[in-house]
Amino acid sequence: MAQQIADKRDVDFVLYEQFDAASLTKNARYQDMNKKMFDMVVKEARNFAIKELLPVNEEGDRVGLTFENNQVRVPECFHRPYKLLCEGEWIALSEDPEIGGQGLPHLIAQAAAEYIVGADFSFGAFGFATHGAAKMIEVFGTDKQKEMFLYNMYSGKWAGTMVLTEPEAGSDVGNLSTTARKNDDGTYSISGNKIFITNGEHDLTENIIHPVLARIEGAPAGTKGISLFVVPKIWVNADGSMGEPNDVVCTGIEKKLGLHASPTCQLSFGSKGSCRGLLLGEENRGMQVMFHMMNEARLGVGALGLFNASCAYLYALDYARQRLQGRDMEQLQNKEAPQVPIIRHPDVRRMLMWMKTHTEGMRSFVYYVAHLFDKIECAQNEEEKQGCQDLVDLLTPVIKSYCTDRGFEATVQAMQCYGGYGYTEDYPIERLLRDSKINSIYEGTNGIQAMDLLGRKLGMKKGAVFMSLLGEMQKTTAAAREIPALESLAKDMEAAVNDLGNAAMHMGKTGTSSDFKVAFGQAMPFLDVVGDTIMAWMLLWRAVVAAPRLGEITGGAEGDARAEKIKKNKNAAFYEGQIQSAAYYIESILPVTAGRIKSLQRNCRAVVDIPEPAFGG
Amino acid sequence: MAQQIADKRDVDFVLYEQFDAASLTKNARYQDMNKKMFDMVVKEARNFAIKELLPVNEEGDRVGLTFENNQVRVPECFHRPYKLLCEGEWIALSEDPEIGGQGLPHLIAQAAAEYIVGADFSFGAFGFATHGAAKMIEVFGTDKQKEMFLYNMYSGKWAGTMVLTEPEAGSDVGNLSTTARKNDDGTYSISGNKIFITNGEHDLTENIIHPVLARIEGAPAGTKGISLFVVPKIWVNADGSMGEPNDVVCTGIEKKLGLHASPTCQLSFGSKGSCRGLLLGEENRGMQVMFHMMNEARLGVGALGLFNASCAYLYALDYARQRLQGRDMEQLQNKEAPQVPIIRHPDVRRMLMWMKTHTEGMRSFVYYVAHLFDKIECAQNEEEKQGCQDLVDLLTPVIKSYCTDRGFEATVQAMQCYGGYGYTEDYPIERLLRDSKINSIYEGTNGIQAMDLLGRKLGMKKGAVFMSLLGEMQKTTAAAREIPALESLAKDMEAAVNDLGNAAMHMGKTGTSSDFKVAFGQAMPFLDVVGDTIMAWMLLWRAVVAAPRLGEITGGAEGDARAEKIKKNKNAAFYEGQIQSAAYYIESILPVTAGRIKSLQRNCRAVVDIPEPAFGG
Repeated sequence: MAQQIADKRDVDFVLYEQFDAASLTKNARYQDMNKKMFDMVVKEARNFAIKELLPVNEEGDRVGLTFENNQVRVPECFHRPYKLLCEGEWIALSEDPEIGGQGLPHLIAQAAAEYIVGADFSFGAFGFATHGAAKMIEVFGTDKQKEMFLYNMYSGKWAGTMVLTEPEAGSDVGNLSTTARKNDDGTYSISGNKIFITNGEHDLTENIIHPVLARIEGAPAGTKGISLFVVPKIWVNADGSMGEPNDVVCTGIEKKLGLHASPTCQLSFGSKGSCRGLLLGEENRGMQVMFHMMNEARLGVGALGLFNASCAYLYALDYARQRLQGRDMEQLQNKEAPQVPIIRHPDVRRMLMWMKTHTEGMRSFVYYVAHLFDKIECAQNEEEKQGCQDLVDLLTPVIKSYCTDRGFEATVQAMQCYGGYGYTEDYPIERLLRDSKINSIYEGTNGIQAMDLLGRKLGMKKGAVFMSLLGEMQKTTAAAREIPALESLAKDMEAAVNDLGNAAMHMGKTGTSSDFKVAFGQAMPFLDVVGDTIMAWMLLWRAVVAAPRLGEITGGAEGDARAEKIKKNKNAAFYEGQIQSAAYYIESILPVTAGRIKSLQRNCRAVVDIPEPAFGG
Repeated sequence: MAQQIADKRDVDFVLYEQFDAASLTKNARYQDMNKKMFDMVVKEARNFAIKELLPVNEEGDRVGLTFENNQVRVPECFHRPYKLLCEGEWIALSEDPEIGGQGLPHLIAQAAAEYIVGADFSFGAFGFATHGAAKMIEVFGTDKQKEMFLYNMYSGKWAGTMVLTEPEAGSDVGNLSTTARKNDDGTYSISGNKIFITNGEHDLTENIIHPVLARIEGAPAGTKGISLFVVPKIWVNADGSMGEPNDVVCTGIEKKLGLHASPTCQLSFGSKGSCRGLLLGEENRGMQVMFHMMNEARLGVGALGLFNASCAYLYALDYARQRLQGRDMEQLQNKEAPQVPIIRHPDVRRMLMWMKTHTEGMRSFVYYVAHLFDKIECAQNEEEKQGCQDLVDLLTPVIKSYCTDRGFEATVQAMQCYGGYGYTEDYPIERLLRDSKINSIYEGTNGIQAMDLLGRKLGMKKGAVFMSLLGEMQKTTAAAREIPALESLAKDMEAAVNDLGNAAMHMGKTGTSSDFKVAFGQAMPFLDVVGDTIMAWMLLWRAVVAAPRLGEITGGAEGDARAEKIKKNKNAAFYEGQIQSAAYYIESILPVTAGRIKSLQRNCRAVVDIPEPAFGG
């Protein structure tokens, strides 16, 4: 059976060949580490995922959650792996050792996360959500708060959540109605109802720490009057010990399309009038604090899109290699011809190629951003640091939206490869499709991401940040120009980068004109062309790395001799796959992207102009 | 609450304004009918669907099926509507009255089917599958067989199925291993196991008639040795009465992503050695007979795509009009501005517009093909008849594949409009998404359809049939040219028709060259550009009908005065919606389609050339 999470060869390629993770050890921060250590961590994550998480995935989905007397029980089979997750110290891989972290580069943590979270999306959310909540306390908490919470959260002893949404305040967080009132002892009394809280209640940990958005009585309306409070399920005393249960009640869990083992909770805070919380950061500055966590969560959810695609691709590939059906198209007239695996059929190959290129492109994209975080940690000066942070900010909505949409689409394509079997619960694709659909919705719908890109990020520093992204792409096209096998692809890619620059200018101009609604009606297709071009860039970059290495293996061989060498050498086949992926994407997908850009440039007004009654219904 | 199945105004527009169903009564076949009768039938179908089917949809999905002792029980709530379906004589609307039909035009039957099947996809399959099986007996059966089966099937007293698939013979039907041996009494003994049989066993009817593909012992390998047998669950005596139970055993049902109330059965024929069947048509000609049914089923499944889109759109539209969230983009600086329904947000409008245009375009497309069947019935000569039949044959794979993919995509977009709520079971979109996914897979996967279009249909009569399709499109562009408000759209559409012609030439040429695998690797994107162009054609056609009628209502009014008239007059709003839809599709989508055509024309070889090991895994 093929690996079902992530292709190890490809993960290693991205880590060590595309982004040269080993060279990070030249920096002071990682000077005590070496590639062997990195390898060991990633290998352990992979083993843990394969041995402990893949086997509980189906059962977790089937058994699901139990909700009784305001308590949630996760599937029994989750308890052992959760214990191992904590023991393995997998939650805080890139945090500082003094607060319970492993101090590893983000690149390495990303690879470990791909294996662990990719093996079981319901389970993975437990580590993921806790990390985000803890990080916020690390960045914005007082020393006392850090002391009280950090170690217990990063170790997984206590879980964490993210409590924003209310029934009437989803995308429009500023409209929330949960209130806070300051008590004499400095704590705040919290009162309100929240919904859609991932892991809001469960029995995996002895305590759950809720970062809760609320409005202090008398604070301004809108987002400027929102504060953030740390509200433990069980009160935490100043010495870090647990006190009385807090007034936090789970009043229900959602029945959902997927993620059946991941509790999505309705929480009632202060229904008995005795819910207490600690202010995190300053009063009325809760949104800034929460945005720190949301940005991390958005990058994390974008990465889920990659993981979905990666799993879907590997399952479909494995099936396509094994399932015999029909004859080779070149043998259709030969009734004696044997059945062939469906990977021989061009239409199946097309679907596999779509999944392969998007999986690989997204892996490079997601790891590229992880690498930017490493560069921020190791930056020699403020300018370098800021440049990396700016790129992270620009790319966050693209990662979140583009990768989650493609991740879902990959599960759809994979199901198609399986035919009728894919629609049944007998194969993992059915579950994967259900689980992946949430990613385009939560942590800010993809439409919100597109508005963020167009309305905030595109104009950062008067467009200079976006220009610097194009500059990064041009470095790759310049390198590709120097490689004869890639010259033609490089030329196409140069044109695509120019097209993207023009599209961005056009969108920026329309978005700040009186016709701005026309632009915002196209924010999503604009985000998609940015994402497509990034895919092409990443795949060309991969080809630039692969081509010379392939050349070394094949020597000067051509035609059949070259094909024979590629067939016999796993590395050669892998590198050849990189070049074919770049060719597929640049020659087959980018012309469609160019069409999308033409569509943007037409500024069609129908979406804005159509009168509401004309929608019918 | 808005209508949740199909927009009545739009269905009526297609029936009477776009395709002028009323004029069918000028033909001898329908001379005793009139528009009032048509209206009544469609209205009754709609009432039946709303009153009896919509209410059982959620319960049917939730309760699901019971499988015990080889018997399947459907949800109890299905029994009453099924009785009403039979009493209302809804299964054979367009068949001749002497065999139990209503003798109505296909256009009218299509509209009735949209309401009935669209209200509950699991339930709808019972009528749909029975009709197909009965039709095959009507066309290919002996007089005796028709007498024995037809009336009881068209009335719904007995159900019908379609029994092709075996575990090792799905898309590759010719590989099946079920056998038949002729008995002395002229019947055949059938032996074999079949899977994925929709409604293969259930308790809605006293008998189930299975058309079964099998190979007579000694017949040639492949599809040329396959015969078709009518195998009743309970034997049917020559006088039409029921005899002993036949040796047909349901050995299991599938657990599926969706259609939880529609049994997908594993059937064992002849496990006790006593399964009997009647030959339908000639020996070894079973595939031709079955193809008659499959073509009907493919058109029917394509129509399901339309129904999915239609439901998804109306639900999302209704939600978008009611859900308050955020402020109008023009009021973002005004903190006192009220929350607005999300239909005001450009990105939500974009999704609604995508769903609206595809729903309306597909409705016109599906009804256009139904109208072709009416033209066949009423044709004055063989040439006219053949011309219509050729178009049906050409368009069948496009309807099946294009509409089912867009239908599913519409459910995805609709879920996005709902945000987090859409992912929960509290709203109907979650079920709709699950139910709709099968349509791209069964009755020949969409990849098979694309191969049919490229490999068989495109080259029909040396391309003349495809050219005649382009000719039909040109009639519409010529009409649009004459209408000032549509002149610019007409010009764009003319270019698109030319582009499509060039794409078809290119694909036909590549598909018959030594590079044919490259073409077949692009068969699906080619089918998609055909479908896109048909959408644009249908929407422009609608605008051609709507524009003068809108002009009559608005008079010469312009600007605000015109807007006011449109706001106040429902018909005006509807017609304006048609013009905006055409503008959206032609200006926003067709540039992307043009990009797809450029992609096809590049003949990228990567999909074919990539060595198998280079896929990784």
